[in-house]
Amino acid sequence: MDENQRTHGPIPRTTMERLPGYLNFLRMKTGPEYERISSTVIAQEMNLSAITVRKDLACIASGRPRVGHRREELIERITEVLGSGECSTAVLVGVGNLGHALMCYKGFEHYGMQILAGFDVDSRVVGSEINGKTVYHINNLYSFIQKNGTSIGIIAVPAPCAQEVCDRMVAAGIRGILNFAPAHLRAPANVVVRHEDFAVSLALLAVSMEKQS
Amino acid sequence: MDENQRTHGPIPRTTMERLPGYLNFLRMKTGPEYERISSTVIAQEMNLSAITVRKDLACIASGRPRVGHRREELIERITEVLGSGECSTAVLVGVGNLGHALMCYKGFEHYGMQILAGFDVDSRVVGSEINGKTVYHINNLYSFIQKNGTSIGIIAVPAPCAQEVCDRMVAAGIRGILNFAPAHLRAPANVVVRHEDFAVSLALLAVSMEKQS
Repeated sequence: MDENQRTHGPIPRTTMERLPGYLNFLRMKTGPEYERISSTVIAQEMNLSAITVRKDLACIASGRPRVGHRREELIERITEVLGSGECSTAVLVGVGNLGHALMCYKGFEHYGMQILAGFDVDSRVVGSEINGKTVYHINNLYSFIQKNGTSIGIIAVPAPCAQEVCDRMVAAGIRGILNFAPAHLRAPANVVVRHEDFAVSLALLAVSMEKQS
Repeated sequence: MDENQRTHGPIPRTTMERLPGYLNFLRMKTGPEYERISSTVIAQEMNLSAITVRKDLACIASGRPRVGHRREELIERITEVLGSGECSTAVLVGVGNLGHALMCYKGFEHYGMQILAGFDVDSRVVGSEINGKTVYHINNLYSFIQKNGTSIGIIAVPAPCAQEVCDRMVAAGIRGILNFAPAHLRAPANVVVRHEDFAVSLALLAVSMEKQS
């Protein structure tokens, strides 16, 4: 982590997850009346509790009481925190609809993250360019990762193929995996695996709705 | 929530997020030696701490000390918890690559969730069938939601169109929104909005990797 985090200590996961929301919100507020913005205003407009916002922003920046935060500074800080990983390049395996969407996703660049290339076995996509990035055959995965020193792999293949892809990534030196396949992956303890599960997102939404009603 | 949750109290969000992982893991372990399974074994094989697993499982089922949990019962319980929302049907707006992938996503059915239909403005997809579900023109959104009593909307359109889609959903009676567009949405306080941000997933992965190294 950078100086920012050393100063403020580790940032709680729930805060990290709200940062992109703040960023999108702050980017929209371009008027001069938003040059300085208080956590109270952010809380009101984003339907969050004032305490939550104050605590979240205290993790990343030092606002002055009654004066609020400089909007530009907040944007800069959040971008820094979210993009501060040394591991800012990734490879993606599985260029189906989801993989295609990920390769075109605009959000990554905001945080200094970049998908370098896609990999697949399907001859209909191998050799094509998506969003300026080449799709290679999976057999080139090892040499590509070695050559580029990439440490993050994104898995967007069907569940039955996910373990094989994971093994290939690990063998090539990948240390962090973002897995979109609804499958459990076995990986060495020194490799971080994060599961993205759309179904659980929907389930969590339903649970929040019940709490409200 | 169902009886299960009334017995065990509300389930922490971090636990909810790990449940699909357990489910995928347990579904893979079909051998007779896994008929009963302890939290220690699950922890070892999933690279989690034993305390985490014990606490997570205590939220959803009552295992007996030294005997462990019945695998089938765990699977049933997790499925119940994740699919226990009364709001189990959703509509999706934006049938690009991501929307297409979501309409084909296998994971939803495991939890009793179902995307009923897709909506778009593009004449190339309107009228088509994806995974057995029809794609309608967005102008049919209001009547479809009213007719089917759907309470969840999934937004998979580009960021600049997201607010308009959100407004249309809210006007039609949607009470929960899963937003995949990298945009801040304004919605009434009684509507729950959950943001899915691929970039923050990647950022969180990078942060976990740094903690490890």
